[in-house]
Amino acid sequence: MSENNLCTVGSQSLKLKKEVYINGSASIVGKKEGEGPLGLLFDMVGEDDMFGCETWEEAESSLQKDAVYMALGKAGKKPEDMRYIFAGDLLGQSIATSFGIMNYNIPLLGVYGACSTCGESLTLGAMAVSGGFAENVICVTSSHFASAEKEFRFPLGYGNQRPLSASWTVTGSGAFVLGAQKEKECKAKITGMTVGKIVDFGLKDSLNMGACMAPAAASTIASHFVDYNSQPEEYDKIITGDLGSVGQKLLIDLMRDKGYDISDRHLDCGMEIFDAGTQDTHAGGSGCGCSAVTLSAYILKQLSEHNWKKVLFVPTGALLSKTSFNEGQTVPGIAHGVVLESV
Amino acid sequence: MSENNLCTVGSQSLKLKKEVYINGSASIVGKKEGEGPLGLLFDMVGEDDMFGCETWEEAESSLQKDAVYMALGKAGKKPEDMRYIFAGDLLGQSIATSFGIMNYNIPLLGVYGACSTCGESLTLGAMAVSGGFAENVICVTSSHFASAEKEFRFPLGYGNQRPLSASWTVTGSGAFVLGAQKEKECKAKITGMTVGKIVDFGLKDSLNMGACMAPAAASTIASHFVDYNSQPEEYDKIITGDLGSVGQKLLIDLMRDKGYDISDRHLDCGMEIFDAGTQDTHAGGSGCGCSAVTLSAYILKQLSEHNWKKVLFVPTGALLSKTSFNEGQTVPGIAHGVVLESV
Repeated sequence: MSENNLCTVGSQSLKLKKEVYINGSASIVGKKEGEGPLGLLFDMVGEDDMFGCETWEEAESSLQKDAVYMALGKAGKKPEDMRYIFAGDLLGQSIATSFGIMNYNIPLLGVYGACSTCGESLTLGAMAVSGGFAENVICVTSSHFASAEKEFRFPLGYGNQRPLSASWTVTGSGAFVLGAQKEKECKAKITGMTVGKIVDFGLKDSLNMGACMAPAAASTIASHFVDYNSQPEEYDKIITGDLGSVGQKLLIDLMRDKGYDISDRHLDCGMEIFDAGTQDTHAGGSGCGCSAVTLSAYILKQLSEHNWKKVLFVPTGALLSKTSFNEGQTVPGIAHGVVLESV
Repeated sequence: MSENNLCTVGSQSLKLKKEVYINGSASIVGKKEGEGPLGLLFDMVGEDDMFGCETWEEAESSLQKDAVYMALGKAGKKPEDMRYIFAGDLLGQSIATSFGIMNYNIPLLGVYGACSTCGESLTLGAMAVSGGFAENVICVTSSHFASAEKEFRFPLGYGNQRPLSASWTVTGSGAFVLGAQKEKECKAKITGMTVGKIVDFGLKDSLNMGACMAPAAASTIASHFVDYNSQPEEYDKIITGDLGSVGQKLLIDLMRDKGYDISDRHLDCGMEIFDAGTQDTHAGGSGCGCSAVTLSAYILKQLSEHNWKKVLFVPTGALLSKTSFNEGQTVPGIAHGVVLESV
């Protein structure tokens, strides 16, 4: 009975019958991100990374609150116009989200996909709007350098050394207002998605997350091409979330093994947001906030100015916790693909 | 353009135009749960709570793996028949899920709603199926007493005393195969949902989570009645996830304040699963696994045997983490409502 209604393509992708519009977005970042190559593009840059709060976790919550506030403002919407909010972060039990967006009083669907969470929230938000479950929703994700280091690795005060394969968690939050109707401030549209599988190559190094996540990115991107029966050339850019310079090399090699050359059109948000040469960020930026703020500030700008017509946006996540790491588990990866087109 | 297609009702609820069928489900629990009042109804009961693993976290992963395996078997499906898996748990960064369901190779959408996660996964899974984004999906959630105590409170070896308001995290996992078509082993159908908002009454006691969550349950249940223009009498049972005996009293009072008497038809999964008098579980069971295994073993059985025709299933969650608790934050609650009807 529902066959005719299905918008599934291939084994794990979707082509939306009703496309979904990104009618507003906003980004807020910390001081270091503001000093990076994309610094002038962000909507707000903090003077320090506490954002007037008492703890790093509260600071991260305030990032989500501010990103949602600004995105709603730019879309000309109020919180009560948003039927649902799809939100998540990197902290245990997603506390940055809970305490950040609570006061908007928007029904919450909490999501977790490590640093791929921006892709997951856009995927589920677009399903909700396209499927007739909401007229408008908002998606928000965040990360914070200091809260993430505490959550996953060492207290900052310990001053541990970081190998060159390590990435630097972005302090920032990006929010996106999705709607069924194209509105005045529309930046781009979501036309399809490829939901990622967990891919585990057995790596255990939490200070080389690019290597841990590259196989998952390759899996999702290759599945997307197969499902869509498409080729890299059909996309102006193929943009991963936070593979960094180590992960990028691996991704390009893995994709060659699968028969696709993406080397001339691959971008990584983690490599765009910092100048590794001068900012001491080693492999690049990472975190739920990295792909979210880069999407809002840079990628959507290129699409809205028609410099790019179509991109495959693939936030990447490393599925570890401090507990799993300490218990000797591997660091599996996941990546979710979202097809963004200019309008 | 999409107005005609919308299945939204009121401010936060949905009435599905295409209902979604629960074509199979399974539950697995630990020894203590097996000794409780529902013991004989579970599909599998462990001999101890390690389930042959080295750590509690691995044990919880194995619960999810086994629940998914059994649910697929009962539905007569293979992993590759499931387009997406909606899964989550209580541990930081949802590691029970990542390591538990990885090998099924099903594209993952990770969800987090604390102990309300079963409601959230069913909500999103039903949206995906009803909206034409999948023909079949599987939803799974879990919790484990020992991994949860370590994650949220004290190491078990510390032997802290528990007040009578405390609940006992259920060791268990429940999995549900959702489909667009009613199949042979169909247990019940999902006809609608009410997505919950975060509700914070300012309580800070992580050993009285029933009180922390009752306001959120009341908010969701009352919103459901308003959105649906319905009354408690239209439901055979109104079933919360893990309010326990303290939370139940508060919920019934809060609902009376809102003009609804649910006292004659309220059940709480946390109060059903343990015999508080003999099992020393104090206020009752809790955790992502509590509502999930009770739904699979008990609630769906009543619906499939037509003892009940229609229930409002409302898993409840407390949005705290060890970090937020230690930083003096409140414990906000959330609850998601799912309308289940017999077929």
